Parts: sequence; structure tokens; C-alpha cells
Amino acid sequence: MTPDALEGALRRPFAEPANDRVLDAAREAFEDVGIQRTTMRDIARRAGLGRATVYRRYPDRDAVVAAVLMREVRVFLTWLDERIDHIEDPAEQIAECFVAVVTGLRGHSLLNRLLTLEPAAALPALTVDAGAVLAVARGYLAAKLREHQQAGRLRSFDPEPAAEVFVRLAHSMLLSPPGCIPADDDAWSRAFARTHLVPVVTG
Amino acid sequence: MTPDALEGALRRPFAEPANDRVLDAAREAFEDVGIQRTTMRDIARRAGLGRATVYRRYPDRDAVVAAVLMREVRVFLTWLDERIDHIEDPAEQIAECFVAVVTGLRGHSLLNRLLTLEPAAALPALTVDAGAVLAVARGYLAAKLREHQQAGRLRSFDPEPAAEVFVRLAHSMLLSPPGCIPADDDAWSRAFARTHLVPVVTG
Repeated sequence: MTPDALEGALRRPFAEPANDRVLDAAREAFEDVGIQRTTMRDIARRAGLGRATVYRRYPDRDAVVAAVLMREVRVFLTWLDERIDHIEDPAEQIAECFVAVVTGLRGHSLLNRLLTLEPAAALPALTVDAGAVLAVARGYLAAKLREHQQAGRLRSFDPEPAAEVFVRLAHSMLLSPPGCIPADDDAWSRAFARTHLVPVVTG
Repeated sequence: MTPDALEGALRRPFAEPANDRVLDAAREAFEDVGIQRTTMRDIARRAGLGRATVYRRYPDRDAVVAAVLMREVRVFLTWLDERIDHIEDPAEQIAECFVAVVTGLRGHSLLNRLLTLEPAAALPALTVDAGAVLAVARGYLAAKLREHQQAGRLRSFDPEPAAEVFVRLAHSMLLSPPGCIPADDDAWSRAFARTHLVPVVTG
């Protein structure tokens, strides 16, 4: 994904108000009663739209789940970018990115709630069907790496697969939180990232 | 996990033939008809055991699924170890380990079949409930890193969180196969691992 395409992907949801109304309504319903107990009718009612209007935009509830997830990823990347975009040093940026991602995943109430209460309903969109959202996240990080390369702060390599290593680490940490990488110790996360993650692109 | 504990974990399933009969029967049933259409009665019948015997060992089907998965991981690690244990150079071992894992995950018929046909039934054990299997895999890799450290081939660091980076990369690649890391090009995988993964522990 080029930086321009990424920029477009990050902005797109905010450019279509009716879609956003559907996704806001769906997100609220998923938080209130979960995915499985939310029907397309519920989503339409909460959005103040006719059912036909909702179905024209999303053929079924799985499509709504996928769209809500994609928007969450975009919002998350926008939130992340505010925290790390100003950092010029690649090592420092990667360390702060890791701290922010660990903190952000831990604090994501909708995702954590769905993973706890409705894993069977939420997991396909987050795993076997997550190709598109992982690609958006990878594109975001690859664009950052590419900027560093163009500025001569990182040597030349294909930034996409390197970015994928970071995205997949975060992906697994979201899906299976317990591990020996603590989620609530920023100083530890920062030191860990500098020792073991920064070398993925500098080593 | 200490190397001895790991050794025990790898050997344990083979030391309890009745459990193994249950797990063999369950695995066969999952491959034939999937998890959701397999009952505890089916498993008992295929195993040639009474239902009470099966229930004494595993309280419900979820417990059988978890045990089958744990045994698959142990068998996979034994298979992996045959491929990489003789390699003394840490960089070469990590590169060959990555090649073997990519190949092994791609070729794992049961896991891939369940992820394709029954994601909702198979995914909880592979994600939110995968803490124990991820810990076994991490323990295996950490033991390898520790051996290199003790032999002076790697500098000193806590090998567990470093091993977790590798395990989580493989975990995400299993759960969401499409990505820009190709699954069928050993030479590419080897070069990629040397450039971007070996530095996780040497950088």
C-alpha cells in the first residue's frame, strides 16, 4: 500500500456519513448486547435508517462486523500516528510504537469485550478473514519504514515483510493476551522493543 | 520452562496410552466430520472405550479439543527439533527453524482444515484459550536460545520474551495465512529470517 493509498484508507470512513451511521449503530449494539444478539434490523433501528438502506450498504451482519473492525483499525492507526509521527529516530519511533500498541490493545474495550464474551462470533473476522485489516496495518508501518529509508535513516530493504513481523506480533498479542511480554509496564516494553524489535529493521 | 520440563512435556502424551487412544479417536473424528459434529459419544465409540472413561479424562469436548491441540503442538515441536537440533550456529538455526515452521504450518492438514471449515469452533482454542500451547512453544525456543547463551554463541538476555516474538509471528501466520511473507519459497524465507528475524536475538 502506498502512503497515498494508506492516507485514503485512513480517511475513507469519515467521508461517508451514512456508512458511519450504520457502523456507529452496529458498534454500539455489539458493545451493548454482543454480535450474536444483534440483528440487521437492530442495526437499522439504532441508526435511524430503513433496513433496505442498511442491506444496500452491507449484505449481511458479517459484512458489518468486518466494516466495524476495519474502521476500528483505521481509528487505532490514526490514534497511534498522533503518538509516533513526530519521532524522527527510527529506533525511538519503533519503541514508542510498541509501547502505544501494547497500551492501546489492552485498553480497547470493544475488542477485549468481544474476545471475552463472544470469541466464536468475533474471531473469524480477527483471524481467517483478517487479511485486509492486517494489510492496512502493515501498509501503515511499511510507509513509516519507507520514510526512514528515503531520509537515509534506515538501510534499504523491502519494508512490507519487515512491517508484517511487527503487525503479526501485535495481532497475536491481541488474540492471546497472556504471555511473558507484560502489557502494563511501559519502561519494560520500551527496553524490550529497543533490544529485540528495533533490530528487525536495523540489525 | 526448563529444558527438562520441556522434554517432559514433549514426551508426556506418548506415556499415557488410554489418553492417546481418546485423542487419536478425537483427531480422526475432527478430520472426518469436524469438531461441531463430533460428540463425546462418537469419540468414545471410535476409541473403543466407555463414555464414562472418556469423561473421567476429559470433562467435555472443549477439553478434548484443547488436548488434541496441545498434542499437535508437541508433535510439531518434536518434528521441528529433528530438523534444527543439530544446527550449532544460532543464525543458521533460526533461519532453518523459520523455513521449517512456515512449511510445517502450511502442510498441517488438520489445523488448516478446521480453520477453513469450522473457524468458529476451532478458533477459541487457537487464540483466547491458547495460552498453554503458546507457552510450550515459547519454552521450546527459549531452551534453544538458552543453550546458545550457555555455549557463548549468544549474548545474555532473558530468552523467554525473545522466544515469544518468534512464537507470536508463527501464531499469527497460522491464524491469518495471507500476507506478504510467502509460504512456499524456502530460499526467500531463509533470507528473510537472516535479515529480519535473526537480529531479534543478535542485534
